[in-house]
Parts: sequence; structure tokens; C-alpha cells
Amino acid sequence: MKPKLTLKQIARELDVSVSTVSKALRDSVEISEETRLKIKAFAKLYNYKPNNIALSLKNRKTRTIGLVLPEIVHDFFATVISGIEEVANQKGYNVLICLSNNSFDREVMNMEMLANGSTDGFIISVAKETQQKEDYHHLEEVINQGMPIVLVDRVVDQLTCDKVIIDDSEGAKNAVQHLIDSGCKKIAIITTVDYVSVGKLRTDGYLEALTSNNIEIDEDLILKIENVDQSQDEINEFLLTREVDGIFTVNEQFATSAVKAINLKGKSVPEDVLVFSFSDGELSRRFIPSISTVDQHGAAMGAKAAELLIERLENTVEEENFQTALVKTSLIERESSRRIKSSAV
Amino acid sequence: MKPKLTLKQIARELDVSVSTVSKALRDSVEISEETRLKIKAFAKLYNYKPNNIALSLKNRKTRTIGLVLPEIVHDFFATVISGIEEVANQKGYNVLICLSNNSFDREVMNMEMLANGSTDGFIISVAKETQQKEDYHHLEEVINQGMPIVLVDRVVDQLTCDKVIIDDSEGAKNAVQHLIDSGCKKIAIITTVDYVSVGKLRTDGYLEALTSNNIEIDEDLILKIENVDQSQDEINEFLLTREVDGIFTVNEQFATSAVKAINLKGKSVPEDVLVFSFSDGELSRRFIPSISTVDQHGAAMGAKAAELLIERLENTVEEENFQTALVKTSLIERESSRRIKSSAV
Repeated sequence: MKPKLTLKQIARELDVSVSTVSKALRDSVEISEETRLKIKAFAKLYNYKPNNIALSLKNRKTRTIGLVLPEIVHDFFATVISGIEEVANQKGYNVLICLSNNSFDREVMNMEMLANGSTDGFIISVAKETQQKEDYHHLEEVINQGMPIVLVDRVVDQLTCDKVIIDDSEGAKNAVQHLIDSGCKKIAIITTVDYVSVGKLRTDGYLEALTSNNIEIDEDLILKIENVDQSQDEINEFLLTREVDGIFTVNEQFATSAVKAINLKGKSVPEDVLVFSFSDGELSRRFIPSISTVDQHGAAMGAKAAELLIERLENTVEEENFQTALVKTSLIERESSRRIKSSAV
Repeated sequence: MKPKLTLKQIARELDVSVSTVSKALRDSVEISEETRLKIKAFAKLYNYKPNNIALSLKNRKTRTIGLVLPEIVHDFFATVISGIEEVANQKGYNVLICLSNNSFDREVMNMEMLANGSTDGFIISVAKETQQKEDYHHLEEVINQGMPIVLVDRVVDQLTCDKVIIDDSEGAKNAVQHLIDSGCKKIAIITTVDYVSVGKLRTDGYLEALTSNNIEIDEDLILKIENVDQSQDEINEFLLTREVDGIFTVNEQFATSAVKAINLKGKSVPEDVLVFSFSDGELSRRFIPSISTVDQHGAAMGAKAAELLIERLENTVEEENFQTALVKTSLIERESSRRIKSSAV
């Protein structure tokens, strides 16, 4: 039997993108008629079976949930998975995980594979590249054909489906307020580029906290980073040339880099500078000093997403009644933000 | 359409274990005739379709690899996944991931689901509980029916299939030799309980290094831990009551706990005690002091496993010619094992 033709192979053969193939096959007007006809003719010639969601719906229940995540190297998504697995297993569902590696094309291909009869529904956190492109046709297609999707953490406002988010901006605001209450006057933020939705929301929370305390916003104290894993030099340079007494970071990787940069200046955390971070993980817990963090409750988010999806699969909710569940963050204070009182001499 | 009956449901209904159901359905003599007949009758009554590997083989190629891993919260398996994904994607294969959470029952159920037409073959690292039970019937069944399996890292000697391992014992030996060469005379080891195969091999490497340097083995300097995530107290107590100048740990979590325990004694790493660890991850890289580690090359192991599996799926290797690929470890020296020369006064 011949291997099944995939979107990727069609794209390669015709020298177009996976997204173009996917859109052409569903007659998107975004693709020129010439290209559409060429792609559809090719697909027909090689007997390509598109994303056969109808088949999958007929074959329900597989009692399987498809989970598409951007990456798992950082702790957060691992905790989301554990929350999903716990609820799913309790209710007799299996979980199949696919990684997009933050690539739009891989996300489209993962969904193509999983929608093809293996799963009853999806839990998805969209790839960075998908957010950047703002191309959600693959998600819209699945939703339009009646397969339930729950978006988690990195959600897309314009999609009509269940969503699970945390109060990113509120959590960040509380963390920065904590720094202000501890006496910090010059608080820097180390965050991600704006198109990453959660980074943007956390930056908003930082700005809100400053404004509501009548602290002037200093653009020079805001560092936006593109690549989390290669940011130490950038953070060193940023902190070496600025005098700050508090730092808020949107993830724990940035927090540990900030501690190192402060040490390079011959100063220390928390003696000279307080640090508060977003997203609690093994790194924050085990670091010396241990890092104060906003706990994202990844497991709770995963559990909620699994509950919402299973309710929909088992038709225990009204069809059009989509909800956005908000999981509350909480602050975990550890050594990095604990003001060390100078003893009287 | 009624949901598909699963092994777990049969087990629950008849109040026996998943393993008993699975074995009874393949007529294992380990199960009493009475129980076997009861289970088979029940399965027949409810039209249970066993692990339909024959169907899956007929439907090849799905061009999908099933990956069953014990957990992903620690960095190592995340790197294994990245290596598998890279090779698989290059060669036009998708990867479906399932987690056993170190549970034998979940591993059996994951394989049941994936063998049922979703995948062409498996890459597996067996659950801790499976190693403890020494029950490999679910793997044997898949192998006997002609579906290729590659075992990675946590392998099982008695199974006839391709395997990818690292030189755990050699890597540990080299790390301990490094401590000895740096002048350490009393070297402790913090390791896992013996039934975890890689922990056992690393302990062997530690013992070998001592023996080949004519250092007497002191059982009192060997700590074996059951639960990695709740071991700080145990490690504190162990190190507070022993005088050592070097510590070898089988994972980076133990290494950071050891640094903390040494700090509690009012001593420091590397000034008073050198630390060398196994398995390189974000924690080792970012910790202060950064932790010297044996690099397991998880991505290389994953890549090799994917290559071996794809070769077998595409019949480019001889059928009975199974191989065990050995990925070499290397030492990454960082701050925790760097002897700080005492300056002449």
C-alpha cells in the first residue's frame, strides 16, 4: 500500500507553503484561482484525502483527546499536560500529544493528522508563529465542521470556542505591586516581544501597577526579548547600564539571568535588588536564591480544559454556550523578593 | 455509536488488574483457566476488539511513530523528544506522544491505543513500575506480531528489538574519575533505588572508578533515593552527618539539593566540596554555581531511535539483525567541580 500523501508533500511538490495548500483545498478566496485549481488537481490526481473530520465525527467515540502544544522544554506546558492527563484518565479518555515546536506548518500538519479519525476533540495552545501570522484557518475549519476545540493559555480572541486563560495581567500587576510595597522605586521589566499574547498581557499588568501607584513609566526600563534561550548577554547589557532596585520578569528563565547579571555588577539579590517572576517551575524552586513567582497553576488550567472538552464531547453543555474560564494566579514569595532588613549598627 | 470498550473498563467490571485482562486475552498461562475464560467471555459479549495490530499492519503506512515515555517533567525526555521529532519530520513522519506517568497500567493502555491503527511502530522508554514488576508482556506481544519497537534509555535486556542506550556506567565512572583527579578523597554518591536500570548502572560506574583507584568502598557514603521530587530532607540529613569532599549525583535535581545541604553546613560548592552530576539540563546550566554534568545527549539518543525505527519501517535493514546503539556521553565541566586554588598567603 502506498504511503498516504500529506499536505507537506503536496506543498513541496508544487513549491508552495503548507498553509497555501491547506487553504486552497478548502476553497479559500485568499488563494488565487489558478493556484487553487492547480493544487486541487494535484491532490485529486494523487488521491489526497483531506482532513477527514466527517469520518472522525462518524467514528466517535475514540475516547481520545488530541493535545497540540508549542513546546514542552519549559516547565509550564508539562504541568498543563499533567492536569489534562489527570482529568482525562479519570473520565476514561486517552491523551495523544503532538508538538508544533512553535511552527505554524507543524501545527497545521498535527491537526490534520489528529483530526483524521484518531481523536474526538482538541486542546490547543497555539504556536508563536501562528500568533505572529494571525492565520487561524486550520482552527476555524475544525470548529466549523463541528469538532470541539478548547484553547488554553495562548488563546485567539476571534475564535468561537471554549478557552482557558489565566489572569496574566492581574498576576503581573500583583507581583509588581508586591515589589512596590517592598519599597522598590525603580522597577525594570524583562518581557517577550509583543506578539506573544501572554507576554503582552504581563507587560500591561506591569504598566498598570506603576500607573496606579503614580510611578512614571520609563521606557528605558523595559526590555523585550525575542529568543528566551539566548538572552543572557542581552540581559547583562541591559542591567549593567541601568540602576534598578526591583526587576519583574515574565518567565523564570529571565529571572535567573537577571540574578546573574546583578551578580556581575557586584550586587546581589535580594540584598540590593528584588526579583519577582512569572511562571513557577523547578528552576524557581531550586535556584539559589529561590525565585518568587506568580504561580500560573498550569495543572489547574489543564484540568479545566479537559473538563470543558469532555463536557462538550458528552453533550452536557448547550451547543452555542462557549465559555472562557479564568484560572486565578497566586503569588509565591520566596527568597528573591524578601527584603533583608539592614540591622542597626 | 457506543464507545469502544477498553482494557481498563473490562478490568474494572471484573475487578481484576489491567495486566490480568491483557494477559488473559492473549491466553497467557500465567492466568488461571477460570479467570481467562471469564474475561474472554466478557470481552466477547461486549464485542471487545483486542489490540488489533494485524489491522494496523495492513493499513501501513500511517507514517506515524508512537512514542510512549514515562514522564516529561524532567529535561531529559524533552530532549529525547526533540531528537525524535527532528529526524521524523525530516523523513516525513509524524510523532504521537503518550505518557505513562511511570504507571504500568497506563503504559499498557497507551500501547493498546496506539497499536490500534494509529502508528506504524513504537519508540518506548519503559515506566518505572514496569521495570519494578518486570512484566513486559505488552511489549512482547507487539514485537511478536511484527510491529517494530525501539527501546530508548530505559531498556529491557530480555526483549529482542532495537535499543538505544548511553554508556551510563562509563559516563558515571568518568565523572567520578574527574573528582578523584581533582583531589577528592571521600566521594559520596546520591543515586536512585536499584530497580531503576539507569540508576543502577551509574552506581556501578561510581563503584568501578573507586575500585580502579584503590579507594575503599564505604557503604555509608551511598544514598539511594526512591522519590526524586521529595528528597531534600533525606539529602540534608545524609550530608550533615558525613564528611565528604566530593559528591556524585545521578541527576541534576539531586545535585542542587546537595549544594543546598552543603550550604546548610556552612560550607560551599566548589570551595569545600566538589559536585558532579549526571544528565545535563536547564537546571544545571542556570544554577549558581553552574553544575558540572555528564551530558546524556538526549537529542542524539532520540534521533538515533527515530533512525533505527524508520529504517525498519522502510525495510532497509535485515529482519533479524537487531542492534543496540550506544550513544557516548561526555563531561561538561562547570563551576561546581572547578577546584578553586587557595592563594598563597
